[in-house]
Amino acid sequence: MANQIEPIARMVTQLARLPGIGPKTAQRLAYFIVAQPEEQIHELAAAIWQGRKNIRFCSVCGNYTAADPCGICTDPRREGATLCVVRDPRDVASIERMRDYRGKYHVLHGTISPMEGVGPEDLRIRELLARVGAESVHEVILATNPDVEGEATASYIARLLKPMDVRVTHIAHGLPVGGDLEYADEATLSLALAGRKQI
Amino acid sequence: MANQIEPIARMVTQLARLPGIGPKTAQRLAYFIVAQPEEQIHELAAAIWQGRKNIRFCSVCGNYTAADPCGICTDPRREGATLCVVRDPRDVASIERMRDYRGKYHVLHGTISPMEGVGPEDLRIRELLARVGAESVHEVILATNPDVEGEATASYIARLLKPMDVRVTHIAHGLPVGGDLEYADEATLSLALAGRKQI
Repeated sequence: MANQIEPIARMVTQLARLPGIGPKTAQRLAYFIVAQPEEQIHELAAAIWQGRKNIRFCSVCGNYTAADPCGICTDPRREGATLCVVRDPRDVASIERMRDYRGKYHVLHGTISPMEGVGPEDLRIRELLARVGAESVHEVILATNPDVEGEATASYIARLLKPMDVRVTHIAHGLPVGGDLEYADEATLSLALAGRKQI
Repeated sequence: MANQIEPIARMVTQLARLPGIGPKTAQRLAYFIVAQPEEQIHELAAAIWQGRKNIRFCSVCGNYTAADPCGICTDPRREGATLCVVRDPRDVASIERMRDYRGKYHVLHGTISPMEGVGPEDLRIRELLARVGAESVHEVILATNPDVEGEATASYIARLLKPMDVRVTHIAHGLPVGGDLEYADEATLSLALAGRKQI
């Protein structure tokens, strides 16, 4: 594209690197941005940069957080006896949005995928076993995505937890098979959690 | 939404202020952003902020520019005898993308709209007349959008230019009526420009 205005061209290039934003959308966003008041765009840019810079992983559950350990891990009102195991931090956000779940989380940071060379040792499974051994956990809810890799990961973890003194459950298939936890609506997620079964 | 992670929540709020980006998309973008390398997000935030901060209006043509006068106005290879009049800087970008037009521009910053209280004195029409009087302009191409307000603005300007020694043309209705110049494809724009008629 023959955009001769360098600062705008640079903005378009950067915006087009975001998922779901093609060159046309990036161009529209850039022209919107330059037409906004300076303070407002300063807020936007600062929110993006500060957001990235101030975010780390909680050393306990693996979720994103600004302070370590995170707000959920340190919240005395949350039941530490229940751990919900999810693939990534976005899934924590999805479950939190439902406002139903009062336990804590464990984020795996992926699912077992031989195709992509991701093995169990690449996930936070060792940390999960350590938590179950050290904390007084009574139930582990496996809430990986209802797809092949998610199911395989859940089965693998269930097998490892079998000898330990803990109830292992799996969220019900209220979720459409092959779907993505991130896009599930609150009602479906709520049903899936309520209908969980012991493995 | 019960997003407890403040820096992410702030990012979502800011991103959701962009056009066409709802809360769900903003959330997806925010989670994408925090998962990227810091340098990359620094580049993104810097491109947004620097882009906004370094952009001003060209005092000659009214287009966005980093340096005043802009690159098109100061380009000796562009014919100053032809001025293409458009509503806003996005339209300049659309016409430039076609790589066909070798003249210069004049950006009105709007169209006459009694409904929205925009009168001729709110647009850069006086500046256009001054340019036509002072520079050796032989042709003014009116390339406002082919909608009611665009047409009314073009007629108004054509009437003012009538007594001046300049050819006034209008891009052809190759553009779909009621459409938006910004979304026209290069071929349609090219045809519309080639088929322009004297008013």
